Amino acid sequence: MASPAEKAQSLTPSAVQAAYTLIQPYVHRTPLLTCKTLDTIASTPQTPEALVGTPFEGQTPARPKFRFFFKCENLQRIGAFKARGAFHALLRLIEERGEEEVKRHGVITHSSGNHAQALALAASTLGVPAYIVMPSISTSSKIAGTRSHGAEVIFSGSTSVEREAMVEEIQAKTNAILVPPYDDFNIICGQGTTALELEAQYAEQAGSKTLDAVITPVGGGGLNAGVATYFSDKKTKVFGAEPSFEGADDCRRGLLAGKRVEAVSTLTIGDGLRTPVGVLNWEVISNKKKVEGVFAVTEEQIKATMRLVLERMKVFVEPSAVVGLAVCLFDEDFRRLVEREGGDQGWDMAIVFSGGNTTVEAISKLFG
Amino acid sequence: MASPAEKAQSLTPSAVQAAYTLIQPYVHRTPLLTCKTLDTIASTPQTPEALVGTPFEGQTPARPKFRFFFKCENLQRIGAFKARGAFHALLRLIEERGEEEVKRHGVITHSSGNHAQALALAASTLGVPAYIVMPSISTSSKIAGTRSHGAEVIFSGSTSVEREAMVEEIQAKTNAILVPPYDDFNIICGQGTTALELEAQYAEQAGSKTLDAVITPVGGGGLNAGVATYFSDKKTKVFGAEPSFEGADDCRRGLLAGKRVEAVSTLTIGDGLRTPVGVLNWEVISNKKKVEGVFAVTEEQIKATMRLVLERMKVFVEPSAVVGLAVCLFDEDFRRLVEREGGDQGWDMAIVFSGGNTTVEAISKLFG
Repeated sequence: MASPAEKAQSLTPSAVQAAYTLIQPYVHRTPLLTCKTLDTIASTPQTPEALVGTPFEGQTPARPKFRFFFKCENLQRIGAFKARGAFHALLRLIEERGEEEVKRHGVITHSSGNHAQALALAASTLGVPAYIVMPSISTSSKIAGTRSHGAEVIFSGSTSVEREAMVEEIQAKTNAILVPPYDDFNIICGQGTTALELEAQYAEQAGSKTLDAVITPVGGGGLNAGVATYFSDKKTKVFGAEPSFEGADDCRRGLLAGKRVEAVSTLTIGDGLRTPVGVLNWEVISNKKKVEGVFAVTEEQIKATMRLVLERMKVFVEPSAVVGLAVCLFDEDFRRLVEREGGDQGWDMAIVFSGGNTTVEAISKLFG
Repeated sequence: MASPAEKAQSLTPSAVQAAYTLIQPYVHRTPLLTCKTLDTIASTPQTPEALVGTPFEGQTPARPKFRFFFKCENLQRIGAFKARGAFHALLRLIEERGEEEVKRHGVITHSSGNHAQALALAASTLGVPAYIVMPSISTSSKIAGTRSHGAEVIFSGSTSVEREAMVEEIQAKTNAILVPPYDDFNIICGQGTTALELEAQYAEQAGSKTLDAVITPVGGGGLNAGVATYFSDKKTKVFGAEPSFEGADDCRRGLLAGKRVEAVSTLTIGDGLRTPVGVLNWEVISNKKKVEGVFAVTEEQIKATMRLVLERMKVFVEPSAVVGLAVCLFDEDFRRLVEREGGDQGWDMAIVFSGGNTTVEAISKLFG
């Protein structure tokens, strides 16, 4: 079998293009929105008080200039970009093993979140049985959402050992084929189609200019690695964003240490970003030629950004979705980089809003 | 002076068209969105239990078919359709009295809500001083929003007597010209441009079909009367929606009694809909040839609809914005009408989301 480093070499822009051709009939071309109010806020220097207690205390706050382009994957099917990877992985599986075999065995995954619903939707659309192992403590709306696409939900304990044991038990009975949530070539190529689409939409809106940069959340790293793969032969710079709470910034820390962090245990409000970066994903993201840097933000910064997106932009997002914008607003290190490299012109910068699967009760808990 | 009935005769589609020509450079062409999930939910019969305690108890629930087109005025400038009317009223004022005179006197209004911010924006854009009388109990974000457009905010008591006394006091000093929030020819024509725009967008999306119906919230009635004016020579049916809480359904009750209800005192969560319908607005809305009917929904129905729009459609709206959709989802009388008139084909129905000016704290209060 190919090593992760060898596999990573096959992750090319044309692999993403091929994924797009396959999945296009099944996914939404989500809108790329602008918001002058957020441009203005992000292009205003932070107050000197905001820098107190940071390495930039006492220095002149940066004056970056941003023109944002928001890729609204919260409006994607099942409310998150995960639909792209799930459709792609399943369509490839059918291509490789034949429709009859895949339909006979079915597919299986373990997830309490967006990947569960995405695989359930892809499977029901393509007529394939799906088994989704979910921790029994999953919220009822997520269980109902997964079931509403016709998937069979099997409950397990909440640790990854318990979940994986249950997957093996089901596989022993059904021969169901595992579709992993992020650490997978086809999943990464599927998520990368987000980049291809937003680049085309940017060209429609901004004319012949080159998009300066894009930032995405980093959880397992499928989205960021896919986007970085697509832009790897272009001038657009790719950045990643993570929550810092309880070590959720495993990717950022791994890059500093020169070694992937293998386990994370965090309850950050960015609940889609609680996993460590996958092995194949790490091969892409730790490649400086593909991803220029990963930055981390606090829970309070995520909340403040969510408030702005909801109240000012009027778009409903989940906390995980806004970490990229939070970096642009609050990370002084990143803001200095944009001031330095963007100069008077500033940057045209795409922000990927990864999903919108939250509830009014969760919003109430955050802000009540 | 012309009577309201005479004035109403000048409210024609071409008056709305003329308003659009004037305001187009100043307002957003807000998107017209679709959402299959909401189509499916609204096209599913209510449960027999949901009809218990209503006049339809024990009867077969209606099976209407809806294809919705959501006109997102929550994405309009200042977050509500009110920007249309305010720009139109002020541009006409300048046309009629001359720029010099209007700039010398300035404009004035009293409002604690979206009209205050809309007039403040229009005035600052056109270089006219604006005085906005706001109750001193107004929320700080609304005061800040109004001030951010450069308007002078003057505080008053919260009753309409106190507010109007303050307006007169300021007018005595400044000669500022009053721009009323809804009961006004130019305001109505301005709000009516929402209809013109959504009809054109519907044609782009749906081809040569005719839009079957449109429903808007009814507070002071500027939006509904404007939309009804625009569609008055077309086949598209116009409906209105109100909260029923504490008599906020003054328009619906007035239509039943054959007489405008002149005063309302309600604290419905649809805080943009707490005012009685204006005199000129009533002339339009009570004309059966222009508005086919006005329906009312409960606070719980408004909340349930808001949850669906936020969680499923991922669009951030204020409670007032969703009363039209709530009627489609919950008013069995209206649902029967759509089943009867729409038949197997069903209706292509536009829903105007009037605004999105709420806060995460307000959401927390509603659902926490």
